[in-house]
Amino acid sequence: MKKVGVAILGLGVVGGGTYKILTEHKEFYKKNHGVEITVESVLETNRQRALELGVDESKICNNVAEICSNPEVDIVVEVIGGVEPAKSFVIAALNSGKSVVTSNKELFCKYSHEIEKIAKKNGVGLFYEATCVGGVPVIRTLLDSLQGNKITSMMGIINGTTNYILTKMSECGSPYGEVLKEAQKLGYAEADSTADVEGYDAAYKLSILSSLSFHTKIPYTEIYREGIKDINNADIVYGKQLGYVLKLLAIGKNGENGIEVRVHPTFIKSSHPLAGVNDSYNAVYITGDSVEDVMLYGRGAGAMPTGSAIVGDIIYCATHPTHNYSTFKNTEKADPATKFVKNFESAYYIRLSAEDKAGVLAKVTSLLSKYSISVSQVNQENCGTAGTAPIILITHITKENNVKKAVADINATGFAKVENYIRVVS
Amino acid sequence: MKKVGVAILGLGVVGGGTYKILTEHKEFYKKNHGVEITVESVLETNRQRALELGVDESKICNNVAEICSNPEVDIVVEVIGGVEPAKSFVIAALNSGKSVVTSNKELFCKYSHEIEKIAKKNGVGLFYEATCVGGVPVIRTLLDSLQGNKITSMMGIINGTTNYILTKMSECGSPYGEVLKEAQKLGYAEADSTADVEGYDAAYKLSILSSLSFHTKIPYTEIYREGIKDINNADIVYGKQLGYVLKLLAIGKNGENGIEVRVHPTFIKSSHPLAGVNDSYNAVYITGDSVEDVMLYGRGAGAMPTGSAIVGDIIYCATHPTHNYSTFKNTEKADPATKFVKNFESAYYIRLSAEDKAGVLAKVTSLLSKYSISVSQVNQENCGTAGTAPIILITHITKENNVKKAVADINATGFAKVENYIRVVS
Repeated sequence: MKKVGVAILGLGVVGGGTYKILTEHKEFYKKNHGVEITVESVLETNRQRALELGVDESKICNNVAEICSNPEVDIVVEVIGGVEPAKSFVIAALNSGKSVVTSNKELFCKYSHEIEKIAKKNGVGLFYEATCVGGVPVIRTLLDSLQGNKITSMMGIINGTTNYILTKMSECGSPYGEVLKEAQKLGYAEADSTADVEGYDAAYKLSILSSLSFHTKIPYTEIYREGIKDINNADIVYGKQLGYVLKLLAIGKNGENGIEVRVHPTFIKSSHPLAGVNDSYNAVYITGDSVEDVMLYGRGAGAMPTGSAIVGDIIYCATHPTHNYSTFKNTEKADPATKFVKNFESAYYIRLSAEDKAGVLAKVTSLLSKYSISVSQVNQENCGTAGTAPIILITHITKENNVKKAVADINATGFAKVENYIRVVS
Repeated sequence: MKKVGVAILGLGVVGGGTYKILTEHKEFYKKNHGVEITVESVLETNRQRALELGVDESKICNNVAEICSNPEVDIVVEVIGGVEPAKSFVIAALNSGKSVVTSNKELFCKYSHEIEKIAKKNGVGLFYEATCVGGVPVIRTLLDSLQGNKITSMMGIINGTTNYILTKMSECGSPYGEVLKEAQKLGYAEADSTADVEGYDAAYKLSILSSLSFHTKIPYTEIYREGIKDINNADIVYGKQLGYVLKLLAIGKNGENGIEVRVHPTFIKSSHPLAGVNDSYNAVYITGDSVEDVMLYGRGAGAMPTGSAIVGDIIYCATHPTHNYSTFKNTEKADPATKFVKNFESAYYIRLSAEDKAGVLAKVTSLLSKYSISVSQVNQENCGTAGTAPIILITHITKENNVKKAVADINATGFAKVENYIRVVS
């Protein structure tokens, strides 16, 4: 029977889950995949944590060089997160002839061009299913199932923390700050929630997924990014009245005018399959020219689901003797030939407050029409404070810059104030 | 650049789609996958059809031996359907050293044990993503992404025709026969709809998917099968009132007592992700011990989505030099050690008609309790005809045989008649 030795760098949440899965399923993998997978080494400075997980004392190490020179180790699992020291460790492992499996989206998004080159040079495997959307098999699907398609669009709820927060805000009507605190208490959000709530995490993942989908490097720096910190419960309620659900959406499109990539709060029509993706569930909705629409749904984070993705990569690596790499030019920057669409098209939700008197709506719509923005739905409430009333508009498809100009114009003229505007997907 | 020649056996719906995708994307595959894929030959007796698709006259052939001896052909795509002559053609191709990509669920389900052995002996590839759920990448996901999990359950809406019929019955209230005729007119159902409406098609697919999920051969003959022909609009309406949607579900479970595999109409709680899978969309909901729940959703049939799955397999085959086969014993019959659970557990929807007088419900529930069946929801209508009224019950989880016995008992005692009972998933 084939024997494969694994080293795990970092026994945090995902590392711990991976260790647990590998050890508990050892006989199962021998029987069903014909391979004996043994955790030969773990890199963990917190010895106590490793011992509590059941790691044999002799296998705990705190020196990556030791792992690189260990002939029993074939595959190195990097689950440390962040750029350094993870990057140096991964490069050292690849240069020692080990294959690498990583869940590190920041590292992979920022340095795949460097790392992949080293893997290729050494003829070893580089696997990264766990970088995106936890246990949901989106990387493998793009690489090995939908690769015959020209992918025209992908839309994803790919950050568990923000989806949990938005679901709770929508269900309970609690304000953002309160739900965030609760999420932190429950372990759904980290103490420093910046990467999640400001959309960095989703942008890293979108960079990886859109590069694979569109067969060209999409650096995360090209991604328009807007987080959920300014989301107001009122918007969620008004959107719901008009048949929409609010999600932090990562959107990638490849059309005639070029590629557009963006992460921002988005209203989705409640009948859309993505609208029902709640709590810490995640999903990616992919449209290809042959396959039409495919949605992949599941747990986007967590020790065991992300561990499942890592172990899937380990078994794949162990049972496939040769390795494939990006077929596009995996460079640091985008190919100069790639056109990015910044002034993208979308429908918009616009919430205004205005004096509660006749003619205001007419003034607003007339001003919007100056920028070729037409309105598909209106909801004029009369529950405003101090003589003002909220007006909610949903526009037809228009251009981002037109909306920005119209908003500035409305605010300048003073008869109404745009409190918020949110992009809409129907 | 690597060159790969393909032969397509049968230019029907899926064969035509495959031809179209391969020819229209030729440059795309050269650029993005580094492989030049050429359709070298098509086996099609209807020359006119082939010519209309744009096949060069010199490439149309009606003799499989010619394809087998053609050195330009590396991969043979079998999209004829049915057992013979598809089986002989596939075996001839494998024995000539060609890899085979097939969409033929009946052939693969009934003869994978024979065919795979021949592929293995010849060291060629055998790919079958397109046998199950059209463009939805469920086979690849089970083989290469979730393979580290013990899959405990899978539930699928895996037949487009029946899902279309049930969706329309639910939306329009039209009776089964009428919707079937309409589906046949629109091309969603074949003239002979037996394989679809009686659940054979779903059972073939479930046999393949559950064998992969549970790492042991599950012959389709072990699958409990019940079609949708006896579904009554009244049941759909009553179920809806209680919060359920009716679907033809393929269910596979692997638990402590053994494996259960069944295809039958099922009420699903309307909040379940599968409940929103409508029309000809399909989905598979998989639960694994690490990944928790994953759902794969998309077009379960059609020329282009199924063609997408075939082309995905072709590119995979062309870009991976070695081939993997079933890691379990792929035999004709089930392993004698496999236990099949026939008396499975489920909740049930029971519709009775009874005389519209006091005490009947008490009698029914008391009789049910004799078989340890307790009731979770009741809906007693008073719109029955001729002094009878329908009673709708949803039971707690109980056993299939208990329900069968209770139904026989109720019908024998004569104070009420069980009009229908349907299994329920919450």
